Amino acid sequence: MENVQQLRMKIRANEFTKPTTGYGMDRLQANVVILPKKYAYDFLLFSIRNPKPCPILEITDAGSPYIKKYSDDIIDIRTDVPKYRVFKNGELVDEPLDIKDIWQDDFVTFLLGCSFTFENELINNGIPLKHINQEKNVAMYITNIETEPAGSFRGKQVVSMRPFHYSLIPRVVEITSRFPSAHGSPIHIGDPNQIGIKDIHSPDFGDPIDIAEDEVPVFWACGVTPQVAVLNSKPEIMITHAPGHMLITDYPTAKLAR
Amino acid sequence: MENVQQLRMKIRANEFTKPTTGYGMDRLQANVVILPKKYAYDFLLFSIRNPKPCPILEITDAGSPYIKKYSDDIIDIRTDVPKYRVFKNGELVDEPLDIKDIWQDDFVTFLLGCSFTFENELINNGIPLKHINQEKNVAMYITNIETEPAGSFRGKQVVSMRPFHYSLIPRVVEITSRFPSAHGSPIHIGDPNQIGIKDIHSPDFGDPIDIAEDEVPVFWACGVTPQVAVLNSKPEIMITHAPGHMLITDYPTAKLAR
Repeated sequence: MENVQQLRMKIRANEFTKPTTGYGMDRLQANVVILPKKYAYDFLLFSIRNPKPCPILEITDAGSPYIKKYSDDIIDIRTDVPKYRVFKNGELVDEPLDIKDIWQDDFVTFLLGCSFTFENELINNGIPLKHINQEKNVAMYITNIETEPAGSFRGKQVVSMRPFHYSLIPRVVEITSRFPSAHGSPIHIGDPNQIGIKDIHSPDFGDPIDIAEDEVPVFWACGVTPQVAVLNSKPEIMITHAPGHMLITDYPTAKLAR
Repeated sequence: MENVQQLRMKIRANEFTKPTTGYGMDRLQANVVILPKKYAYDFLLFSIRNPKPCPILEITDAGSPYIKKYSDDIIDIRTDVPKYRVFKNGELVDEPLDIKDIWQDDFVTFLLGCSFTFENELINNGIPLKHINQEKNVAMYITNIETEPAGSFRGKQVVSMRPFHYSLIPRVVEITSRFPSAHGSPIHIGDPNQIGIKDIHSPDFGDPIDIAEDEVPVFWACGVTPQVAVLNSKPEIMITHAPGHMLITDYPTAKLAR
């Protein structure tokens, strides 16, 4: 595989526009939420009150598009995400490949942990990930679990789901619990109905994946949760990564493990 | 020992006004910072950028003095801290036993983790804590380590120091690293000069403690750090616990361990 800097250059040049699951596997991947400064406190409060879906990695000063914390070179948040989503007043209005033309001086960028970060560790442990093997985006669902509100931000928790052979479940919990900054241990194991998922074959985001007779679905808190919570309050503008199209940093996954 | 609810009632009635080290030992203890809402975002940003000195436990909605998250009954932050400090424009103006008369509708309360939380675990492991055995407050020092600034908040990192027999040091690191929400592992072990502490016999806060020939001083990030950082920007009002006089919650320490 090409190295992560080469991959970033391709993303910056809009030559890589796919979901990042399976790419940059030994590096921290991040959810991106960009909001005007006036929403930043409530968003931060929401994140701290809901640490499983919203593990905060970095917050920029207002107006600065540059991120140095998790990279050897400087990440430019306006260009270094494979695909963005632009929401106005709660509605998706565009899915651009960069946001140079719409950058604002009052934008604050939040990086939040992503479960793609621990997928490499699962693979290193000999635990297969079906969605990667099938070259799909991970399946994501809106649950009936309420988040803890903050200001006007509130909503249901979103989860990502991965099916595993029943014999692997304890080890999957062990491994992922070592990465609290990447959503950590699962929030649910087994019956999707328990957390309000009516049809496991129809994810709300990402691609469906089949679950074999001897497999169990495992659910992790997902970084799409804060996007949904913010959209419920219809801010005049919010920019995020497109689901599954994460920011890939240079930060080694191993350094995040506890 | 009396139970933690009885102790809280004594604190509420201003009958217990001492440092809390050695009390409520199996329960989460917390640093308290109370600021007007307009400072809350920068304080939160500062805390997230400096997680070792500022592990955030809870943030209240503006104006609410009640905390439910870590207690069976409801904590009233205006009365349930043994002793407070009131700062105006960066100057200490009062050390009251409650703050009922000066409570404001725009006050936001931050609870931050405290190293007293892991002291019980050290004792359970047969590791003696000299300052508790000598009925002293822990020794705290301002170092030469810069914090990561946020808004107008900046300053040097404050540490707490505990001396241990050299043979115990690795185990002390192991145990405390399991409590990231109580400052976690030490930030320095050994020579105080390396982190800018000129005179180990003269702490900036708390009580001095002697270090024997076969003992090594171990330093942890301290929750007084954010107080110092905020005071550097001279807010019109800030209220904190008096150093060492922490909020004792009902939350079992064991539930915090990772």
